Amino acid sequence: MSDIDYMKIALKEAEEAFIEGEVPVGAIIVSNGQIIACTHNLTQTLNDVTAHAEIQAITAAADFLGNKYLTECALYVTLEPCIMCAGAIAWSQMGRLIYGAPDPRKGFTMLSENILHKKTKVTSALLAAESIVLLKNFFKEKRDL
Amino acid sequence: MSDIDYMKIALKEAEEAFIEGEVPVGAIIVSNGQIIACTHNLTQTLNDVTAHAEIQAITAAADFLGNKYLTECALYVTLEPCIMCAGAIAWSQMGRLIYGAPDPRKGFTMLSENILHKKTKVTSALLAAESIVLLKNFFKEKRDL
Repeated sequence: MSDIDYMKIALKEAEEAFIEGEVPVGAIIVSNGQIIACTHNLTQTLNDVTAHAEIQAITAAADFLGNKYLTECALYVTLEPCIMCAGAIAWSQMGRLIYGAPDPRKGFTMLSENILHKKTKVTSALLAAESIVLLKNFFKEKRDL
Repeated sequence: MSDIDYMKIALKEAEEAFIEGEVPVGAIIVSNGQIIACTHNLTQTLNDVTAHAEIQAITAAADFLGNKYLTECALYVTLEPCIMCAGAIAWSQMGRLIYGAPDPRKGFTMLSENILHKKTKVTSALLAAESIVLLKNFFKEKRDL
């Protein structure tokens, strides 16, 4: 499985979020070639601003591994993490972060690229166009309601 | 009840964390004079880097109120929030943030004071000395083990 294959799975999660009326962001965490967390944004459903895809993925992956440090893991997320999620990714010492669409309003890189742990390797803009289409359609539908 | 009274309750929560072997940080959320969340750091117990006192308090308060925006609430926390927690406090649109000890290593103000929502009113260094003593004793005990 390539980075693109994994990001496509994260995009499927984002589509699930869309169907549920959630801002369409999906995330998966991969450890040794195995998907150990597969989540999407649930802030509306759970009525909880902290229920972003990444936060849930980190919690689930740590639970699966029995280790709260995810140094050997890769997080694929369809939208650039916000500051809250970047902070969580830093605490987890994530091995790799691969994200899709940049977020010029709320993305962590707007503030500082140094929020992450210094060992986390970052890949940006992977399948960004697919993620942007999903997000644009979501917000267009909301406006048209 | 004054800010000091509420912070004393947050400090009691931090002492609970200490007893449980957790980094001693406590948090409470007050809405209309009522304590609607009372939590402490549980990262070790839950094996989850996201289980900071503030994140749990925000989740619990939103659940209590049935509203994920906490614009009328005050969060009292014994240590300056980290970037992750500051991001969560921003998403929640918290009315007030009152914190104890400054955190020169991981506190959000090291990066930017603008992480919070622009309407959140901040009070810092409330009963900071009491919080610092607790934290210093905790890390001294850890070193002496």
